Amino acid sequence: MDKKGKLVVIGGDAAGMSAALKVRREQPKREIVVFEKGEHTPYAACGMPYYIAGMVDSYDDLIARKPEVFRKKQNIAVHIRHEVIAIDLQEKWVEVRNLEKDEVFRESSDSLLIATGASPLLPDLPGIRSKGVFALSSLQSGMDIFRFLEEEKPGKAVIVGGGYIGIEMAEAFLERGLEVSMLDMAPQVMSTLDPDIATVLSDYMQAEGVTLYLEEKLQEIEINEKGSLTRVVTEKRTLDADLVILGLGIKPNAGLAGKAGIALGANGAVRVDKKMQTSAEAVWAAGDCATSYHLVKQEETYVALGTVANKHGLVAGINLSGGDVEFPGVLGTAITKFRELEIARTGISEKEANEMGLKFRAAKVDTYTRSAYYPESGKITVKLLAEKESGWLLGGQIVGKAGAGKRIDTLATAIASGMTAQQVVDLDLAYAPPFSPVWDPVQTAARRLV
Amino acid sequence: MDKKGKLVVIGGDAAGMSAALKVRREQPKREIVVFEKGEHTPYAACGMPYYIAGMVDSYDDLIARKPEVFRKKQNIAVHIRHEVIAIDLQEKWVEVRNLEKDEVFRESSDSLLIATGASPLLPDLPGIRSKGVFALSSLQSGMDIFRFLEEEKPGKAVIVGGGYIGIEMAEAFLERGLEVSMLDMAPQVMSTLDPDIATVLSDYMQAEGVTLYLEEKLQEIEINEKGSLTRVVTEKRTLDADLVILGLGIKPNAGLAGKAGIALGANGAVRVDKKMQTSAEAVWAAGDCATSYHLVKQEETYVALGTVANKHGLVAGINLSGGDVEFPGVLGTAITKFRELEIARTGISEKEANEMGLKFRAAKVDTYTRSAYYPESGKITVKLLAEKESGWLLGGQIVGKAGAGKRIDTLATAIASGMTAQQVVDLDLAYAPPFSPVWDPVQTAARRLV
Repeated sequence: MDKKGKLVVIGGDAAGMSAALKVRREQPKREIVVFEKGEHTPYAACGMPYYIAGMVDSYDDLIARKPEVFRKKQNIAVHIRHEVIAIDLQEKWVEVRNLEKDEVFRESSDSLLIATGASPLLPDLPGIRSKGVFALSSLQSGMDIFRFLEEEKPGKAVIVGGGYIGIEMAEAFLERGLEVSMLDMAPQVMSTLDPDIATVLSDYMQAEGVTLYLEEKLQEIEINEKGSLTRVVTEKRTLDADLVILGLGIKPNAGLAGKAGIALGANGAVRVDKKMQTSAEAVWAAGDCATSYHLVKQEETYVALGTVANKHGLVAGINLSGGDVEFPGVLGTAITKFRELEIARTGISEKEANEMGLKFRAAKVDTYTRSAYYPESGKITVKLLAEKESGWLLGGQIVGKAGAGKRIDTLATAIASGMTAQQVVDLDLAYAPPFSPVWDPVQTAARRLV
Repeated sequence: MDKKGKLVVIGGDAAGMSAALKVRREQPKREIVVFEKGEHTPYAACGMPYYIAGMVDSYDDLIARKPEVFRKKQNIAVHIRHEVIAIDLQEKWVEVRNLEKDEVFRESSDSLLIATGASPLLPDLPGIRSKGVFALSSLQSGMDIFRFLEEEKPGKAVIVGGGYIGIEMAEAFLERGLEVSMLDMAPQVMSTLDPDIATVLSDYMQAEGVTLYLEEKLQEIEINEKGSLTRVVTEKRTLDADLVILGLGIKPNAGLAGKAGIALGANGAVRVDKKMQTSAEAVWAAGDCATSYHLVKQEETYVALGTVANKHGLVAGINLSGGDVEFPGVLGTAITKFRELEIARTGISEKEANEMGLKFRAAKVDTYTRSAYYPESGKITVKLLAEKESGWLLGGQIVGKAGAGKRIDTLATAIASGMTAQQVVDLDLAYAPPFSPVWDPVQTAARRLV
């Protein structure tokens, strides 16, 4: 493997640019070329709902570093609006379309990093691409939604899909005074949570004014003669809508790699080993387009999250520049909030444990985020799963008021290190009345499992 | 060992009552007698500064369970205002003074749990026991301070000692509008923090209006003709004072055990093994009077904290009632806040690492509690220590705005499980803009150590 020749990076977001920067740090003179289809290099995709809510001063704040900074300060040849359309593994070049000039050219590459990200899933339904219907994918789409809100002043928003993006957009629209409805074809919001935890969230969302339609599927988006959306149709009802957000999940952008003959894995993502190498020599992949290893499931998985993309990129960058490290894997840790409620999860859910055929015990406790007598103390529910025989912690879910959510990190750390519920009980966690009851809520839950 | 006979518990606070409750749960018919010198059974000692600050409605909220509840609901014979004054290991009885009636009697015991707590260190200086001078020790002392504030309306408070109690009382007095000065004979506040971290706190305290005198020792408390305090004298100055808090540390109440011939250990506390057994047969100890095992130092240590007392009590209770479990040990994890600043630590400090003769690396990073563009994002400083050769995490210290402090739990969990700095970098911690930058601050610090 050539760890000195020209490195071509396909995709200039978190994973690609983390890798490029790491290589630059290790190899100050190596030639690095980045092709990015869009107009922006790394930006905080997760910040877009808060930008749309009006909580962030400018979309500029979401952009980590601009292309010209990479070019001038890091000597990385970043080309935006350049789409790689083919990879030739044999001859070692990529075919690139300059989207500005609509010209196609070939670029030779000694090493290749595929960091093409993911795209929102868009069902093939009538009206799905009409004006006022958005999927929050790129920074551009976030800016488009923001502009639509400012210019069209929509009154009624319908959110299709009760996942992370759906929840966060529901919050953003409530903040902006819109009437918000949410559809989900599942019987609960947030499919990564167990139903009893998801219910705490959906009850709260409804109390805060979101109208929720569960077990209902989007069938059609009705438009008026101008091509603008007017109504959302499910099998059960028709809802007036001025704005629709599609939060139906995402799929890895792995078509380019697949066409080149590179092996794909979980969820159709580019299959990588723990060193972030693909099945092809001198070809690496990282970020939302690539697979990960699940530490509890002990199998290949697909997780599209900024944290994972950054780690993928770092590991790929180290290995691309002569190092030899592995990325051990993920737990599917995730967190979000809806107004005053924080929601977090890590490891596997009951459903996943059942799918794995595991014998497990579950415990759920309702307690307080701080000492009960402390003024800002709020409710918190912690649910834990542990393997029946060994006591090993398998997963955790938390929902509660301020200070609840980040407690998931304690559980993620415990699960990653293979701790049992008893070992969680024994942990020397921090206590003072403004921060926790004397037994931290995660320990109170663990005590139910020993 | 008799695990069915009469259990006598000396001390009715967290450790003693946790044990008694656990025994009662396991052995519904066992005879359990508790002697408590004071007037209250478990109360939230750590809540007193917040009660004094006026943030807690009533001191009743600090009392976990009243003696009559233990008597009626749990059938535990709790005697308050009863001080055990001698233990006869041979004949198996304790000598008890009823402080109300001033009568002394003997109580036989088959098993004994010593949970006598700790007392504040009071230097033998002129005026140290005069009116207006307080050490925050018992719930009663908290109530006394509260009443003094209400009745005497003191204007100037001097706090002697910049430890946890000192910091929390400084906050409480500022809340109540007092002028606050603090003395500490050390060159920094919070001796359990490294100087560079302690400085962040002391700078902030001064900015918030606390006048700080470091490297100054209390020499005398001047009183007026009525016996009330008027001034605090150090070797460098004399300060007017209406109220003095002595926060000079604590010592375990181990005299009773020592006199009975039971071995004492670290800091003069009652020596226990990991099962919470003392050197004497059928005698156990738990809580602030007993030793612990330090997981990083790998030696006996002394930690007086509510979390540890509760764990001691639980483990003692399990073993007293026929179980066989161990308490693995402590990390000295602690947390507090001063106004908007959160302060937390776990594991060992640089000073302790040097005392152990360890070769270590330290990294300190200044970053943000949330995504930098998120409105409530605040500054956070994380310092980590790792062993040079192995990379093992040895300790962590955090100081920062809302959301900073409880991140210490991630580090405490990582240290307890023997993780390296690299393993912390690899952790799948939770990220969303309202909660964290994409690399959690503890990981940003860990990245400096790999």
